[in-house]
Amino acid sequence: MSAPGQDRILLAVNMFHPQRWYELLSGKREVVLEPEGSNDPSISYAVVWKQKPNLLAGLPNLKVIFSVGAGVDHIIEDKTIPTGIPVVRVVAEDLTRHMVEFVVWRVLDHHRQGRQYREQQRQRAWHDLTQRPAEDVSVGIMGFGHLGRAAARALLALGFQVNGWSRSAREMEGVSTFSGEAGLVPFLNATDILVVLLPLTPATTGIIDYTLLKQLRKRNALGGAVLINGGRGRLQKEADILRALDDGTLKEASLDVFEIEPLPKTSPLWNHPRVFITPHVAATSDPDHLVPVMLKQMEAYERGEELENLIDRTAGY
Amino acid sequence: MSAPGQDRILLAVNMFHPQRWYELLSGKREVVLEPEGSNDPSISYAVVWKQKPNLLAGLPNLKVIFSVGAGVDHIIEDKTIPTGIPVVRVVAEDLTRHMVEFVVWRVLDHHRQGRQYREQQRQRAWHDLTQRPAEDVSVGIMGFGHLGRAAARALLALGFQVNGWSRSAREMEGVSTFSGEAGLVPFLNATDILVVLLPLTPATTGIIDYTLLKQLRKRNALGGAVLINGGRGRLQKEADILRALDDGTLKEASLDVFEIEPLPKTSPLWNHPRVFITPHVAATSDPDHLVPVMLKQMEAYERGEELENLIDRTAGY
Ligand SMILES: NC(=O)c1ccc[n+]([C@@H]2O[C@H](COP(=O)([O-])OP(=O)(O)OC[C@H]3O[C@@H](n4cnc5c(N)ncnc54)[C@H](OP(=O)(O)O)[C@@H]3O)[C@@H](O)[C@H]2O)c1
Ligand SMILES: NC(=O)c1ccc[n+]([C@@H]2O[C@H](COP(=O)([O-])OP(=O)(O)OC[C@H]3O[C@@H](n4cnc5c(N)ncnc54)[C@H](OP(=O)(O)O)[C@@H]3O)[C@@H](O)[C@H]2O)c1
Repeated sequence: MSAPGQDRILLAVNMFHPQRWYELLSGKREVVLEPEGSNDPSISYAVVWKQKPNLLAGLPNLKVIFSVGAGVDHIIEDKTIPTGIPVVRVVAEDLTRHMVEFVVWRVLDHHRQGRQYREQQRQRAWHDLTQRPAEDVSVGIMGFGHLGRAAARALLALGFQVNGWSRSAREMEGVSTFSGEAGLVPFLNATDILVVLLPLTPATTGIIDYTLLKQLRKRNALGGAVLINGGRGRLQKEADILRALDDGTLKEASLDVFEIEPLPKTSPLWNHPRVFITPHVAATSDPDHLVPVMLKQMEAYERGEELENLIDRTAGY
Repeated sequence: MSAPGQDRILLAVNMFHPQRWYELLSGKREVVLEPEGSNDPSISYAVVWKQKPNLLAGLPNLKVIFSVGAGVDHIIEDKTIPTGIPVVRVVAEDLTRHMVEFVVWRVLDHHRQGRQYREQQRQRAWHDLTQRPAEDVSVGIMGFGHLGRAAARALLALGFQVNGWSRSAREMEGVSTFSGEAGLVPFLNATDILVVLLPLTPATTGIIDYTLLKQLRKRNALGGAVLINGGRGRLQKEADILRALDDGTLKEASLDVFEIEPLPKTSPLWNHPRVFITPHVAATSDPDHLVPVMLKQMEAYERGEELENLIDRTAGY
């Protein structure tokens, strides 16, 4: 434990309940809860989620910023943060498992025709629908990083064909991998169910538009392509998703994230019969699992070791 | 290929479309389609699903009966079939995968609170529900055979705790196994989500009753126990399931099979808000995958090899 008044942690986890984070961190180190702590020279670490702009700007001795979520767009987009400070993002078994659950859940609900069976139940109709085997269906994972690769492993185990798309070339046994702009169209052309697990960066903002959706494989036997977005809302153009749903380009969509969150009450997505909505809960950060990871990283850093899971400011993730 | 008019196959697959079965079998062997073929001395094999009573009684040279489904209750219950004739049931990768999909799909939909999120969507409510990690939830698989064990492996990979219950003692790494009558209550007491994959036999008929459901672990954090039946309808007492749902013993149920099928229009299960219904489609038998398996078994039998996946008439499965 560091001396009192030294190497303090500033905790600013907007949209999360800060209590548990505070309890767990302060059991081991001195913690300052925002809005206190601005300009405080005793603060070395910031543990943040959607922090208010300027909060981190005036900390003279800030050494490391920890993002409480896997996404760091809230940090990159805050231009008041000095760019020299290293940013560590969350990579944790617990978070990964939650996202894998979400992806497998949504893929299976579309694949096994959950919407149609719920509709038949409402009509008291006993009727078996043609069911394709998983081996005939390909799931394309857009953003083949920590989460995307873990989801791929789970889907392969269930027998699905899996494609992956990333910025750099990546390989995984049993997966057809594609990379970069040149790989995008071939990736989409081979994909029936598109799972988006990209980070939000200048290069990916608005990438899920009508033109992209049009490139998805559309097989009559499956009744159209499916979109699942578990990444970030601003990756998608919601007007384009609606257009694609309405002209048959898309059969169905499961969206966990939205251009504006909370999703406005007026959004036509809410009551679209072929859209399933969750309120950004695909993989929430659990302090009981994540705080120990962060504390370990602080200790390692203080022993002079390299920080892990650092983000690359140029790439934006 | 056997000589014409010899070692013919009688095909009687009620409730399935016989065309594809006929095409595939008759490409290799002589096939007689019911209602023809009764008393025919040239018939050596019967490939059946819910065959009409007496159909197999008068075949003087019947050597082996193949059940097109994993369940053989339709054969055991047909008392007109001479009990000396061996019965082979289906064990096939394709069927197993379909059942694993079904189980994982239903477990995840209950675990990830699909019903509640669909309800919130109808109300345009943006509200994140407390989500337990899979490692805090135990899925109990009742009937730990080919299908149950395959489902267990998939659930373990997703991080769930898994319990298994069978007639004889069975072991699997990572699973708490229980067996026989003495093991039933301890198995239920340790189970949050009950997945039924038992065969229908005199010992299992009506086993899913109110007393059994009452023994399931009921944890407040999970809002109650869940029942998933992918086995057979007459394993369950539907009046008891309704009672358990209505007094809070059960939170939700996913039922693929029913005491009477098709489920009568008048059943209160149809519009129970916490019941999800599918029309006996958890794992349907696909002739393209199963016929080659059966033909192989006939050939092996004719070479004098032992038949595999024979049922035990005394046990009833
Ligand atoms: N909804 C939720 O509850 C929730 C929860 C957690 C995370 N998320 C989102 O999920 C995202 C992914 O998390 P992760 O841990 O898997 O991140 P990660 O390990 O950094 O992986 C990101 C992947 O996206 C690829 N990528 C980035 N920019 C690209 C571009 N311009 N073109 C093509 N591919 C690009 C990367 O390519 P390389 O492999 O070449 O680097 C990598 O494969 C997070 O950024 C976050 O937005 C959402
Ligand atoms: N809904 C659908 O679409 C669908 C599709 C396919 C199959 N099914 C159903 O699924 C059932 C299971 O198939 P499977 O291939 O897994 O069969 P299996 O390999 O024969 O396994 C049956 C399991 O049930 C256990 N069992 C049987 N009687 C028992 C008793 N009295 N007490 C305790 N355990 C008992 C067996 O115990 P032991 O291990 O000790 O033998 C075994 O573990 C089939 O019988 C069929 O009814 C439904």
